[in-house]
Amino acid sequence: MILRFAAGTPEQGVQAVRERLEREGLRVLRSPEEARPILAVAGKMPAKLAEELRARPEIAEMIAPMGELLLVARAMREAPAARSAVVDVGGVRVGGDEVVVIAGPCSVEGRDAVLEVARSVAECGAHVLRGGAFKPRTSPYAFQGFGVEGLRQLKDAGEAVGLPVVSEIMDASDLGSFLEHGIDCLQIGARNMQNFTLLKAVARANRPVLLKRGLAATAEEWLYAAEYLFEGGCEQVILCERGIRTFEKATRNTLDLTVLPLLREWSHVPVIVDPAHAAGIARIIPPLARASIAAGADGVAVEVHLNPAEARSDGPQALLPQELAGIVSDARIQAAATGRSLHRSFR
Amino acid sequence: MILRFAAGTPEQGVQAVRERLEREGLRVLRSPEEARPILAVAGKMPAKLAEELRARPEIAEMIAPMGELLLVARAMREAPAARSAVVDVGGVRVGGDEVVVIAGPCSVEGRDAVLEVARSVAECGAHVLRGGAFKPRTSPYAFQGFGVEGLRQLKDAGEAVGLPVVSEIMDASDLGSFLEHGIDCLQIGARNMQNFTLLKAVARANRPVLLKRGLAATAEEWLYAAEYLFEGGCEQVILCERGIRTFEKATRNTLDLTVLPLLREWSHVPVIVDPAHAAGIARIIPPLARASIAAGADGVAVEVHLNPAEARSDGPQALLPQELAGIVSDARIQAAATGRSLHRSFR
Amino acid sequence: MILRFAAGTPEQGVQAVRERLEREGLRVLRSPEEARPILAVAGKMPAKLAEELRARPEIAEMIAPMGELLLVARAMREAPAARSAVVDVGGVRVGGDEVVVIAGPCSVEGRDAVLEVARSVAECGAHVLRGGAFKPRTSPYAFQGFGVEGLRQLKDAGEAVGLPVVSEIMDASDLGSFLEHGIDCLQIGARNMQNFTLLKAVARANRPVLLKRGLAATAEEWLYAAEYLFEGGCEQVILCERGIRTFEKATRNTLDLTVLPLLREWSHVPVIVDPAHAAGIARIIPPLARASIAAGADGVAVEVHLNPAEARSDGPQALLPQELAGIVSDARIQAAATGRSLHRSFR
Amino acid sequence: MILRFAAGTPEQGVQAVRERLEREGLRVLRSPEEARPILAVAGKMPAKLAEELRARPEIAEMIAPMGELLLVARAMREAPAARSAVVDVGGVRVGGDEVVVIAGPCSVEGRDAVLEVARSVAECGAHVLRGGAFKPRTSPYAFQGFGVEGLRQLKDAGEAVGLPVVSEIMDASDLGSFLEHGIDCLQIGARNMQNFTLLKAVARANRPVLLKRGLAATAEEWLYAAEYLFEGGCEQVILCERGIRTFEKATRNTLDLTVLPLLREWSHVPVIVDPAHAAGIARIIPPLARASIAAGADGVAVEVHLNPAEARSDGPQALLPQELAGIVSDARIQAAATGRSLHRSFR
Repeated sequence: MILRFAAGTPEQGVQAVRERLEREGLRVLRSPEEARPILAVAGKMPAKLAEELRARPEIAEMIAPMGELLLVARAMREAPAARSAVVDVGGVRVGGDEVVVIAGPCSVEGRDAVLEVARSVAECGAHVLRGGAFKPRTSPYAFQGFGVEGLRQLKDAGEAVGLPVVSEIMDASDLGSFLEHGIDCLQIGARNMQNFTLLKAVARANRPVLLKRGLAATAEEWLYAAEYLFEGGCEQVILCERGIRTFEKATRNTLDLTVLPLLREWSHVPVIVDPAHAAGIARIIPPLARASIAAGADGVAVEVHLNPAEARSDGPQALLPQELAGIVSDARIQAAATGRSLHRSFR
Repeated sequence: MILRFAAGTPEQGVQAVRERLEREGLRVLRSPEEARPILAVAGKMPAKLAEELRARPEIAEMIAPMGELLLVARAMREAPAARSAVVDVGGVRVGGDEVVVIAGPCSVEGRDAVLEVARSVAECGAHVLRGGAFKPRTSPYAFQGFGVEGLRQLKDAGEAVGLPVVSEIMDASDLGSFLEHGIDCLQIGARNMQNFTLLKAVARANRPVLLKRGLAATAEEWLYAAEYLFEGGCEQVILCERGIRTFEKATRNTLDLTVLPLLREWSHVPVIVDPAHAAGIARIIPPLARASIAAGADGVAVEVHLNPAEARSDGPQALLPQELAGIVSDARIQAAATGRSLHRSFR
Repeated sequence: MILRFAAGTPEQGVQAVRERLEREGLRVLRSPEEARPILAVAGKMPAKLAEELRARPEIAEMIAPMGELLLVARAMREAPAARSAVVDVGGVRVGGDEVVVIAGPCSVEGRDAVLEVARSVAECGAHVLRGGAFKPRTSPYAFQGFGVEGLRQLKDAGEAVGLPVVSEIMDASDLGSFLEHGIDCLQIGARNMQNFTLLKAVARANRPVLLKRGLAATAEEWLYAAEYLFEGGCEQVILCERGIRTFEKATRNTLDLTVLPLLREWSHVPVIVDPAHAAGIARIIPPLARASIAAGADGVAVEVHLNPAEARSDGPQALLPQELAGIVSDARIQAAATGRSLHRSFR
Repeated sequence: MILRFAAGTPEQGVQAVRERLEREGLRVLRSPEEARPILAVAGKMPAKLAEELRARPEIAEMIAPMGELLLVARAMREAPAARSAVVDVGGVRVGGDEVVVIAGPCSVEGRDAVLEVARSVAECGAHVLRGGAFKPRTSPYAFQGFGVEGLRQLKDAGEAVGLPVVSEIMDASDLGSFLEHGIDCLQIGARNMQNFTLLKAVARANRPVLLKRGLAATAEEWLYAAEYLFEGGCEQVILCERGIRTFEKATRNTLDLTVLPLLREWSHVPVIVDPAHAAGIARIIPPLARASIAAGADGVAVEVHLNPAEARSDGPQALLPQELAGIVSDARIQAAATGRSLHRSFR
């Protein structure tokens, strides 16, 4: 159950309720919302206790969550109806009224290469630099990424062009390296969406996390994965839709924009869309990026390479810099068409 | 193989090639394109014959089709790269540079009811009136539609408000009624997409056909169903994406916008999107309609009811008239945002 | 609601209940079960009326159906718990304690060819001869079957070797030909499972019907399609599982044996399995046929060709006669292993 | 490429080939097969080198693998055509001519509880005791297992009744505990099938691994996950099919028995089937277990609880001990029906 207090309820009143609940053996979680106190109660609340709380004047609303989706629930924050809460990724505000573009190479392929791509990304007006250092690959014989060295190169490139960076973390034991190298946002990949050990470990770092949807994860399971992050102490989560696995094989996956408006209703967590992994074909990414923002996404994430034919991974879905410029321009137009704006670049 | 002649090739030259092919026992099909002669050859062309044709100066290009997708192939028409050919539905041009909105009740529910909805649909600026008279229902005990009487009521309503009408045909034996009552566009429902007998029968009527995608049909199979229509003599086909069946159950189906740009590459056939059957929830239809046009759809089809709670079918996904007005307004904005325009209403 | 009367209830008592229900405007359907009277009531029964009926001593049980699945419901018949009711296909009993094998060519390919295959099928000990005369093909340029002539050849071959025959009907207008040529069992193909017009027309012929599951049909929707047949007057329905469409592409489809035991619980309708269309690869059919019977199927249906490489359709999944002999032998073993027996051939 | 040497080729000859390949910069892997030397070559072999090798008399066969599936390839072992290689799990031989039953509680729920279940499992004649100590749960508020203490209780119960034990490992950092407590077989859960970091870590322990198929993993991806284990040094892998996610919701998942015969062709790795997670309903597990063995599975894995209604996880799919006895008895019958035998219990 989610308890929304009247704005201005003194802290003492909130604590009294909290203690009352804990005396019943219930676990109580607190929203970081400043506009009003909001508590969530895990576990089943006895009917009698619910009745007692409902009678308290300081509790403005009691809202039953969907299942045990507590901390991700929309009722835990005060974001306006069609807007998510805002997550700060190294100075870039993701969510809310603005739309962002995340771009970069699939894999970090060397110091010079990533710097060159980073320059393009920044020049095109994208807001966050992405790049994989640890690569989850179907085959053990495929390129597995440059590891820690890749993190360093990515961060250096980001700093050189003034962009925060996001990179995928595949194992809790690498967390130290991600923090040490100042990776601004930790990406949990689709294959690890329900790697609960990783979720718990990453949550403790309290860094922004980009949580990709699993290939066959329902929207509900995806939100539960986000709930793991919040429950573990991470308040800064961004969801990333990247296509689900269906019977259709003309495209790599099928972008599920249909659930986007439902996610917005259910949760305050911002959602960006990665049309590249859904399409698997670079030339059809632009219309899908437009559609994503039109459907209400808080941004798009794409892959860029100066020479896609030579990319060490995912070349067929990598955009050229001039195509990225089109994505950014389209994002600006689509943001305007839906009453929002492109994130104001700080450069 | 598709043979594209040089513009201005005299008819005699085209006939000579046609006869040459037919002498080899090959079946030759002709595009209605007026800008230049275009022929398609069904079956396997001997390598030697292909070589011979390639040497002829009047044949500008020889293009291998995808499988046996001949008449639907983009190469069979001269539409500009990101545009479909245009289909005329009772005066409404579907495809090309413009975007249309099709709207109306799921089922025709009586003379007054359909007229009232039709008035709203026209006032909101939608372009085509839809309404079901023959209803495919999962259960034999569910409302099956008013049949021929429904067709009459729908057409009368369309005429009263000046809109062409589209309605689903479920069996070849009803074709006479559809023609007699002047139904402007024949809809083939998702469950009948591979009802080949129906496709062949409908094709012979040479009326515009709205061909819905089957719940589990690949884009390729869908185009083959359209190929049946063209092969049977129908040159006026519109595809309608309405969501595919996936593991995700939060929404009724999953809208597959990912294949839209591929369909545009492969085929000249216009594609509209029905976000209502994908979503199954009225309140999430507007962002999905926006996304559809942003992805390049030639229009959207939605369901409208003056009192959704009382609808005899699909009430949960029916829009109120004021919501339809928003859909039309959004369609105008999205058309502009992607370099197109809303169809100029003839009213 | 399903009303099961005490065995021996006089007809008068049943009629009294029936009239009582019809006076309330409810539609009443009757089971052909002879062991006891059983009625089904379509539509919502007022609570008060339900109470009144429950008090009547002649009504032994009132069972709420799953949704509106009335005539297919297990409660409508007296078959023992793990057994289906029995359907008679030209003297072959399908369902109950026995297991059958249906075999024959995908397409009837000529008088001699089908006769030769029929001889093999009979010699191998299979019980029903299958063969397609009207072929639903993805492409309009593919072989569409010999039509009525194929029906005649199939029936003649069946008579020559003493086997009843089953063939797919694609359109209501062909029904006369199927009846005239004495086709013993009408097959509704996967693509037509929800061709409700066809279901209604076929139902009126009161011939045994083999109803294939749609590629993306849930078990529930499939039973509703069967309900259409029963509701339309056909009491002789056999379900045929043939694989559903999933993301896995190593096989043509994925055989859904998981729902088999549920179908047995929900319904009295016998279920056979077609492992050939699921697998798409002849050499993996034998283990799948074994698994089907082990899972409780009432039989298997396979395709046979004397020279698969030359088959006009579905060659890759056609078995050679000696492989069919193995299927029959395995079916006998599996039937015994699960407390049943292979249908006693009447030859 | 897989190089199969003539039986009896002296080691020197094998080394010479190995060195030749490595001089070209190719990575060479060796099969543990004793019947003859077999090497696999990762990466692309130059055509000229391939020609040179083909000419060498000591190389009996050169077989192109499917993609980069090398160490899991059937050609890497000498198992007879319809049989897998054998993996030894604490004295229980999994694969080959015999069929095994793995059973136990979903979660270890305490010392006494697990011991009591273990006694039932042993009495029923099952061969391996399973039990979860680390539980991957969709919600962070659900029971997460007893962790290391659960491992200890499981192993003690296994030892008390003389059965080897299998338990799921969710993170590399727990590996020490699994080894220390003598867990005989490490289970990789469906959600972690592509947790490549975990695969690499577990591989190094060289313990038998039970690798569950991911919910949306193709058979090919699943074998690549097994390839990670082999490539990392683990020669003892067992695959476990547990149902894939499809559109059908009547059952928890859909058991994919269709790929079983293909896996047998492609790979020497034994495959067992977990029908419980596919069905999600205890009462339909027995026919599915029968079907699994009939389809060629090397065993089945099921969950048992003395009081399913009180189970802390997955109660609805837990069998009672008497039902387990039926599973074992059926496995014996099905093994016999397919020319195999139930593993001879060592008790």
